[in-house]
Amino acid sequence: MDKSQKAWQYLKTYQSQTTPLLTEFFDQKLNEAKQFGQVPYLACQHYAKLMMYGKKLRGSFVKLGYQLGGGQAEDKILDASLFIELFHTAVLIHDDIMDQDNLRRGQKSMHACLTDYGCQCRHPDPNLFGIANAINIGDTGFYLSWQKLLSARFNRDLVLEAAQVYTDYIIRLTYGQILDVSNITKWQTDDDEILKIFRYKTAEYTGCLPLVIGYILSGEKNPAKRQALFDYGLAFGWIFQIQDDILGIFANQQKLGKPLGSDLIQAKNTILVWHVINKAQPAYKKHLQSLIGRPNINQNDIEKARQIFKDSGALDYAQKLAKKYFDRGLKLIPKIATSPEEKELLESFLHLVMTRQQ
Amino acid sequence: MDKSQKAWQYLKTYQSQTTPLLTEFFDQKLNEAKQFGQVPYLACQHYAKLMMYGKKLRGSFVKLGYQLGGGQAEDKILDASLFIELFHTAVLIHDDIMDQDNLRRGQKSMHACLTDYGCQCRHPDPNLFGIANAINIGDTGFYLSWQKLLSARFNRDLVLEAAQVYTDYIIRLTYGQILDVSNITKWQTDDDEILKIFRYKTAEYTGCLPLVIGYILSGEKNPAKRQALFDYGLAFGWIFQIQDDILGIFANQQKLGKPLGSDLIQAKNTILVWHVINKAQPAYKKHLQSLIGRPNINQNDIEKARQIFKDSGALDYAQKLAKKYFDRGLKLIPKIATSPEEKELLESFLHLVMTRQQ
Repeated sequence: MDKSQKAWQYLKTYQSQTTPLLTEFFDQKLNEAKQFGQVPYLACQHYAKLMMYGKKLRGSFVKLGYQLGGGQAEDKILDASLFIELFHTAVLIHDDIMDQDNLRRGQKSMHACLTDYGCQCRHPDPNLFGIANAINIGDTGFYLSWQKLLSARFNRDLVLEAAQVYTDYIIRLTYGQILDVSNITKWQTDDDEILKIFRYKTAEYTGCLPLVIGYILSGEKNPAKRQALFDYGLAFGWIFQIQDDILGIFANQQKLGKPLGSDLIQAKNTILVWHVINKAQPAYKKHLQSLIGRPNINQNDIEKARQIFKDSGALDYAQKLAKKYFDRGLKLIPKIATSPEEKELLESFLHLVMTRQQ
Repeated sequence: MDKSQKAWQYLKTYQSQTTPLLTEFFDQKLNEAKQFGQVPYLACQHYAKLMMYGKKLRGSFVKLGYQLGGGQAEDKILDASLFIELFHTAVLIHDDIMDQDNLRRGQKSMHACLTDYGCQCRHPDPNLFGIANAINIGDTGFYLSWQKLLSARFNRDLVLEAAQVYTDYIIRLTYGQILDVSNITKWQTDDDEILKIFRYKTAEYTGCLPLVIGYILSGEKNPAKRQALFDYGLAFGWIFQIQDDILGIFANQQKLGKPLGSDLIQAKNTILVWHVINKAQPAYKKHLQSLIGRPNINQNDIEKARQIFKDSGALDYAQKLAKKYFDRGLKLIPKIATSPEEKELLESFLHLVMTRQQ
């Protein structure tokens, strides 16, 4: 049996449970946006669309953290958990501007969608129009996220505590994002910074934040369990980032929903690139550097890069690193799970992140 | 006697009261940012610098709304009120990217500062580096604002209510910002949209939001007074925007702290431009259009535009409109003020906004 199946099932259940909630939420939001005008409406509409195509891993982790803390009010946590999905779409909108990616979740990224609209309506500078409005609707999204969290139907002290923890994590995430912009091979490389980027940009944000906030909302207050949940989330998040770097070059593009090789175009220090540049034989490094930082990349270049990553040992290194975090995650489960079902689910999520294709 | 003097005094007192609070806050934030690396530190440092040069009108309005509601805990409201100043700096950072303005509060705007750093450090694309990191640190700023508000030392129910109201206003502000990006003379003009932009981009956000949130935090719950405070804030905010448009072309640039004529370069529909295009004689319109939307503007062009605004009646129209809101604001004061001092202060703030030079 596929060991990731239980986790996929959990995720799919979450997706189907939250789809009607999101539909209802955006029906209201679109109605509001319409009062303002055509462009706010269009931006809000594309926001809703991007939301629908998300994996919703982080939202499902809020639910999971809540249930691991013994929380029983499923309808309440489902609604509240969407705060992180609303945030995530907002931050991806900003991220796509920075990374100049035109594809997100198989759809046009926000600035690409709005630039197209600017072209259609003959705006004198459609590119600026697209970027400026994508910045704006991303900002809207942060506050939609707050609207969702602040209206959570839990004890107010718990909501305030969750809100404070959310705030602290996001500040660290944004610093991770700043470091990530500097994280290009031809500029500054610093082992220490790369580790920080991975930790704050992804691991803490993707793994720890949603699990811990779900746990807080459950009302259970067991510091050792909360710490173990954080550590599990961190291990999960590390694997998530390593897989992200691997998928960015080795995935099936259609499944991935975003362009392959974007990291190479931007000369990003992914774990694979970093390993080739810093640890591999000079011939691999030289060959890889010839592929990096060019404005376009074709299927042939991608194949070449794949071969370098395989032959130089970078892929192997990344996979072993992921396995290390997988083992670390497994060891933490007994400190969290209180039933065989919970144990199995937490194990399954580690399998899921080790084998994800998107 | 200058009737705006009391308001200026109130504002100056607020500035000097909050300077040490901001210094303390940013000492801690800079310390945190330093742990992440050089660029987060630099961005945070420039953020703190921009904060220091702000007028802090909105923060002082939080204090004013609180005191008008009978609030006595001055130290608590001073600290909490900084949430809106932290937000304001963040949104201006994003605004300067959209408007491509390199000067803010007499300092380099955030993206300009970071682009310079990118150049110094030979980043391969310093412009993208500057913009991407300015988006990021703006995002950080939103969450610094939340950190401030959520740690306010008031009753938790009041803090949650304030937080919800804050959220609703900011969503409307961001839609106003989206409309503002579309608000250029050579593209779409729609009277109704221009009024909405003025209302949401400025009037509600600058006037109503801080007064109402201060009032909420005071704990007083008088719906009629709260409504009057909102209406006064709206009148104030309208005047603020009209003056903004006038100052954007008629101010002394050094006092203003941002480039003159930026609205013309961007072909923005300010109240003045809108009036010339839609209401003035064709000769004025034609002459003005020849000055609009060019990548650069010199002192001579600014003089020409000033003359058009004067001769066509646009300046007169804008000043009369401001006077209308001034009178409306005055009429609302008896519904808010409970002492001659409060009445005088509210009157004085209307004089301040009518005569501001920056």
